[in-house]
Amino acid sequence: MSVHTVLLDFSIDPARLADENGQKTIFGQLETVLKEYVPNLVLVTEVKLEDGSLKLMTGKKGSTVSVRLFDRGLVTVNIEYYKEENVEALMTLKSARVMENQLKKYITLNKSQAYAPLKRCLFGRYYPTSDERLLEYDIDAVVFDEQSPFQRVQIVHSKTLGNMLVLDDLQNISEADLIYTETLMQRGKENYEGKEIVILGGGDGALLYELLKEKPKYVWMLEIDEVVMTACNKYLRSICGDVLERKKGPNYEVIVEDCMLTVNKFITEGKKVDYVFGDLTDIPISESACGELWEFMITILNASFKILKPNGKFMTHGNGATSPESLELYEQELAKLKPPVKYTKSRAFVPSFLEDWFFYHISFKTTDNGDA
Amino acid sequence: MSVHTVLLDFSIDPARLADENGQKTIFGQLETVLKEYVPNLVLVTEVKLEDGSLKLMTGKKGSTVSVRLFDRGLVTVNIEYYKEENVEALMTLKSARVMENQLKKYITLNKSQAYAPLKRCLFGRYYPTSDERLLEYDIDAVVFDEQSPFQRVQIVHSKTLGNMLVLDDLQNISEADLIYTETLMQRGKENYEGKEIVILGGGDGALLYELLKEKPKYVWMLEIDEVVMTACNKYLRSICGDVLERKKGPNYEVIVEDCMLTVNKFITEGKKVDYVFGDLTDIPISESACGELWEFMITILNASFKILKPNGKFMTHGNGATSPESLELYEQELAKLKPPVKYTKSRAFVPSFLEDWFFYHISFKTTDNGDA
Repeated sequence: MSVHTVLLDFSIDPARLADENGQKTIFGQLETVLKEYVPNLVLVTEVKLEDGSLKLMTGKKGSTVSVRLFDRGLVTVNIEYYKEENVEALMTLKSARVMENQLKKYITLNKSQAYAPLKRCLFGRYYPTSDERLLEYDIDAVVFDEQSPFQRVQIVHSKTLGNMLVLDDLQNISEADLIYTETLMQRGKENYEGKEIVILGGGDGALLYELLKEKPKYVWMLEIDEVVMTACNKYLRSICGDVLERKKGPNYEVIVEDCMLTVNKFITEGKKVDYVFGDLTDIPISESACGELWEFMITILNASFKILKPNGKFMTHGNGATSPESLELYEQELAKLKPPVKYTKSRAFVPSFLEDWFFYHISFKTTDNGDA
Repeated sequence: MSVHTVLLDFSIDPARLADENGQKTIFGQLETVLKEYVPNLVLVTEVKLEDGSLKLMTGKKGSTVSVRLFDRGLVTVNIEYYKEENVEALMTLKSARVMENQLKKYITLNKSQAYAPLKRCLFGRYYPTSDERLLEYDIDAVVFDEQSPFQRVQIVHSKTLGNMLVLDDLQNISEADLIYTETLMQRGKENYEGKEIVILGGGDGALLYELLKEKPKYVWMLEIDEVVMTACNKYLRSICGDVLERKKGPNYEVIVEDCMLTVNKFITEGKKVDYVFGDLTDIPISESACGELWEFMITILNASFKILKPNGKFMTHGNGATSPESLELYEQELAKLKPPVKYTKSRAFVPSFLEDWFFYHISFKTTDNGDA
């Protein structure tokens, strides 16, 4: 089941909306054209508003049409109706564009825009970018949907991306995202052979799976959410292999708990590793670090450097390239760390995010043995 | 100026909407929560519809809220208001999600979805994919906007893609799309040195610019729309160099006319070339081939093969990978061509389309000299 919402915008000389007669004319012209597309259209109500006016109309089969005039010279049209599975759409992008052009000629509008109809089916089709832009994905199935004690865990299927992990309504990783893991780990640039590695989070298993191909000495993966791992083990096998199934091998183990427990244990023991990966979700779900995201992130960073060897590295994902403010804030936090750190950045287009993403590779500025 | 539309969807047990009391309860609960987010909310009207009901409310500063209950168990909420340039948004994705969760707890909903608010500013932010999905781009400026005799020609600026050519509201090519041209021409696989080439369309100049790097004998570029070339020459220099500025060089010329004129001239003269590129827009703008897109495309294909040497190739863009139906229709048309042709396909993710695209490389099935 799905409700379709068709949106159209117009800009118009504000002078034409200045008096009631002008508004009446525009409304009338819009109505004339709309009637051709929405059968049995009748006016329900007209409302005068602080900054313009609104007409609400209804048509065939419960369709509703609202036309809003804004004094500033904007007109928005919203058409909404229930779209049956096997019935043709009342309006497609194509017919919306035909209507748009018809209106443009008839009313002499300045600018106009017809949108691809929104398909409101609660199917996980719509996700945001890092800068809160709306993207419609080609999702055709929800294959897993469960509320864990920590977050809502979903696996949806995209025609282009394959299966995709969605946590709390945010796209996380898909079968098309090897580039994400390879950029995070800097494959070909970093040498993991014989190294000790801690992964904070990483519940989808992709990072562990790829790291194990590089023959590390040992990898500890510290993931709190068993449900994520169950879902990924079943539906994202192509990115995680059998590492989540086995959970332990000669050179790795998956520890299912708040990652801070093992990190703090390492700190107490004085245990140091070569790499720490920050592969947690953007939203803090660790109980040891409630507070805000920012606080949580700083706690993690500080603790991670306490278990890193002098020439060790902290590797993590940053944010979208369209969110330079977040990236800058993060870099300001890095500048405050003690002992001081230096970092390099990598950028890659992540297919399931549909945007460029930045990754950080952070190390001590001056190592104990005097390296710069 | 910009109107923001915030959308929220919920699914609910249809039994709870079955009678008027049930609907009243749900409306009341929704209203209680909505009032916390939209100041001064008052009811304007309530409409009984064929498949449910609708409540229209208005709030502070001309904001409107419509709540639509569908008998089948869907609830849609649309909030719309005029967003001043330097005033905080009434609702962001973040606050919409907070409200979503609050509603979920209060009303016990099955599923819910909050959308990144739509920014309806007539700025060319929204474009469709090949399968009519809605994508919001990070457009921050319109740098060129003119109606040519053939189409609306715009250059918009995207933070991620750089400048992007938009023809009749469809994204065409951006500064980030070298992969498009390289896949179309099969760089590294085809050898253009010393070859004669015809480009049908190609007004952005990118294909001509890249082909000239391969030392062809001669390239004829046949583009009808001078406005496209003026715009691209000025704002897409990074992809077309100075080829549109110069329009003629020792081994190329740009002929500004309906491409069919030169193609027909070549046919009459018996002139044959090594490659023909179909780099026309999706919408037919040639006067010699009005009719429908399909007819136009077949006319172009037939004529192109008449000016190709026996081992010549017709190279063209197909459609998005999410539109297999269009691709199949195209392939059915290819199968009907006389003399018969064979083809290979290439697939590439085109940054400005935000989707995978297919390209066709078509040649005669059996050449005059007996090649298969």
